[in-house]
Amino acid sequence: MTTEATRPAVPLEALRAELGDIVRTDAEALHEARADRSGHVSSSAPLAVVEARSIADVQATLRFATAHRIPVVPRGAGTGLAGAAIASEGELVLSTRRMTRVLEVSVDDELAVVEPGVLNADLNELLSSRGLWWAPDPASRRISTVGGNIATNAGGLLCVKYGVTREAVLGLKVVLADGRLLELGHRTVKGVTGYDLTALMIGSEGTLGVIVEATLRLLPLPRGGVVTVKAQFDSVERAARASSVVSASGVKPAIMELLDPLAVRNIAAHLGADLGSGAIVLVRTDGAAAEADAEAIIAVMRSLGGVVESTSDVEAGERLFEIRRAFHPSQEARGAVLIEDVAVPRSALPAMFAAIERISVTYGIEIPTVAHAGDGNLHPNFVFDGEVVDGHLDVPPHVWAAADELFVDCLRLGGTLTGEHGVGILKKRWLRDELGDDSFALQQQLKAVFDPLGLLNPGKVF
Amino acid sequence: MTTEATRPAVPLEALRAELGDIVRTDAEALHEARADRSGHVSSSAPLAVVEARSIADVQATLRFATAHRIPVVPRGAGTGLAGAAIASEGELVLSTRRMTRVLEVSVDDELAVVEPGVLNADLNELLSSRGLWWAPDPASRRISTVGGNIATNAGGLLCVKYGVTREAVLGLKVVLADGRLLELGHRTVKGVTGYDLTALMIGSEGTLGVIVEATLRLLPLPRGGVVTVKAQFDSVERAARASSVVSASGVKPAIMELLDPLAVRNIAAHLGADLGSGAIVLVRTDGAAAEADAEAIIAVMRSLGGVVESTSDVEAGERLFEIRRAFHPSQEARGAVLIEDVAVPRSALPAMFAAIERISVTYGIEIPTVAHAGDGNLHPNFVFDGEVVDGHLDVPPHVWAAADELFVDCLRLGGTLTGEHGVGILKKRWLRDELGDDSFALQQQLKAVFDPLGLLNPGKVF
Repeated sequence: MTTEATRPAVPLEALRAELGDIVRTDAEALHEARADRSGHVSSSAPLAVVEARSIADVQATLRFATAHRIPVVPRGAGTGLAGAAIASEGELVLSTRRMTRVLEVSVDDELAVVEPGVLNADLNELLSSRGLWWAPDPASRRISTVGGNIATNAGGLLCVKYGVTREAVLGLKVVLADGRLLELGHRTVKGVTGYDLTALMIGSEGTLGVIVEATLRLLPLPRGGVVTVKAQFDSVERAARASSVVSASGVKPAIMELLDPLAVRNIAAHLGADLGSGAIVLVRTDGAAAEADAEAIIAVMRSLGGVVESTSDVEAGERLFEIRRAFHPSQEARGAVLIEDVAVPRSALPAMFAAIERISVTYGIEIPTVAHAGDGNLHPNFVFDGEVVDGHLDVPPHVWAAADELFVDCLRLGGTLTGEHGVGILKKRWLRDELGDDSFALQQQLKAVFDPLGLLNPGKVF
Repeated sequence: MTTEATRPAVPLEALRAELGDIVRTDAEALHEARADRSGHVSSSAPLAVVEARSIADVQATLRFATAHRIPVVPRGAGTGLAGAAIASEGELVLSTRRMTRVLEVSVDDELAVVEPGVLNADLNELLSSRGLWWAPDPASRRISTVGGNIATNAGGLLCVKYGVTREAVLGLKVVLADGRLLELGHRTVKGVTGYDLTALMIGSEGTLGVIVEATLRLLPLPRGGVVTVKAQFDSVERAARASSVVSASGVKPAIMELLDPLAVRNIAAHLGADLGSGAIVLVRTDGAAAEADAEAIIAVMRSLGGVVESTSDVEAGERLFEIRRAFHPSQEARGAVLIEDVAVPRSALPAMFAAIERISVTYGIEIPTVAHAGDGNLHPNFVFDGEVVDGHLDVPPHVWAAADELFVDCLRLGGTLTGEHGVGILKKRWLRDELGDDSFALQQQLKAVFDPLGLLNPGKVF
């Protein structure tokens, strides 16, 4: 570790003279920027946190960083699960969390223009009064920003029917590492002028540029009712099989979540509720065909051994989904957690659950798992006795070995090592295995085009 | 123009020794590769056309091209409308039209793995027997390849509800200019491992690599009926207003096409039918809410002065759509045609039509126009007395001037100069105006990462 004495002095005062109090160096700001929601904490505090209020603030910060060759960590609300927004010694944190304005909502064109710091749920609350919504719905939607959702190409529960973030962004304003402002994309639904840099930016985890404005594609709020279905199965394999059969039937539920028996047991203990034994599949249908879709799904679930209850009542449906929402809190109560995020083709869900069960036995680790079963995205949570050592969550070697085996199985089944959380620092060790050497090298060359000095989020993703 | 005498000899025999008869230098093959469907023809014949049968053929061709520094024009069925697949002297054409195998169809995972040369309509015929379809539906679907659709990010009539090609591709195999094979993307619905190179490749018009295999995202065939609605309006402004109001109402028709009065008149003459006067909007609804959506749309159309007829009969609906399908043949019968492809936010449709009418009067040019009104994509067809001179369609200066003015109006209204046809050679002159200098330069640098020698489709797009 470099010490202050050997490091060249950074003229932070010059930046403060330009930007004022938004350049924070107080202990609270520096401490917060060392962590996200991954369980990981950096081993040292960053130089400063700039809480940008405008595009000009972002440009000034990046010009300063380029002039003095200071690495910059872009950051939204810090709710990421892969460590991409964690900062450490010598780094400048550039937060867009305070850029929260909604600049335009067009009902006629079904679009909104927003600053990156607005929270997903706040935006959707505003939009609902206009009969619209922005579809990306990561579980963190109440606490995560639109800019962060875009930077990670956030997924969520509704993707099976309504798509991922990439499909919900028409255009972006992005500041490059040298401070130049780029306008990418369109206000139109279609547009093929040049390469799709908007798509390239989405999911780039702060390594190519800083998102300072987004033109979002909105959808009309679904009309018609909502039906919620809960189906209980005596094994996770049966539950996974039923989910796969629903997917293959062509019915598109809005949500289809699968909780394995261990997850159900932990949630029951956490809620103090009797949830029975076995696995649970929770399904929601919406739109004009909500009732018909739910009937078709219930028929499949029952034919494959599911014990089903269902409701068209919104509040009763919400109560059923409280089981799902209790998943993460119930695991956190049990120890340190390594949250994984593999995705497999939907037909491989039963095989992936079987692999998780085998790995759990082999390594003696509890791995409660929830899956967005409609799109094949699983979150196996490796629960272990761990603690933060020298600032880092100390993941024991046998847990890493188990995670290694999980990824090998996932790739063998035609899957990917991260469905929606991103690479950050947590998945770096496996990135080259999935991409292959040529793609890996090409991606690094692309980064160099946007950020030739390598100042944006160094050490993340690659 | 360089002559054979001054050009370094190309050892085509070496390529033929490796690849055999698929290296074509007969007059027919060379002639065909000089044109696409844009009306433009190159002024000279290319060196040869390689009709690849396999990925290995594509790799061998590109290794040869790199070794000898020969520019390569990738080509599918040659149905493009922007000149991107047109080849001329000194260039090697690499056709994937003969790579037509469908390698896999998975009903369970709603995906297909195909070679690039399969025709869109052929693939969809095969898929329909499995209850599935691939949504991209350019008007050329019966004669255009899946690879070409991907290379241009093809749009079509159904995009308003089912999205563009970018949303229908999960992964690609691509051969780089130096012959290396890249595998991009996933077999899963979600996946955020590294930058989204699949999206970058889609719509890159053969300038970054050659698409040799695609993993396509399929949809279940819509269930329920189909309703077709025809609404006649006494002016294009009223028709455009009605279309905008339908879009803003949140109803999602599968198709919504608008024909302006001149287009209707020309089509009537071409078909020998009485289509009345004024503009026509053709709408199709499908899925579980087909009837309810059609009723809502009819109510809007009538309230804004439309004279409406509708049918739930599939064949009767097809007959109504014959009016739309006659658009291009009816214009081609009238003279040379410059087909444009602007897109504007849907609320700007009336203003864009007003601009087209003004430009038509100013320049004394007939500009019959059809619009995919649901997504704001218009095709103004500039009809003029023109001929092919020295191999090129001779577009008179006043037609280019009129097109210039069209683009200025389009950009002013928040639009883009190509919604779905691509840049090719036809839109090159305006590309920098829309992208801006910084984005333009960045895009060229990205191309250099993929194709450092600049051998892939030189002179196209940039």
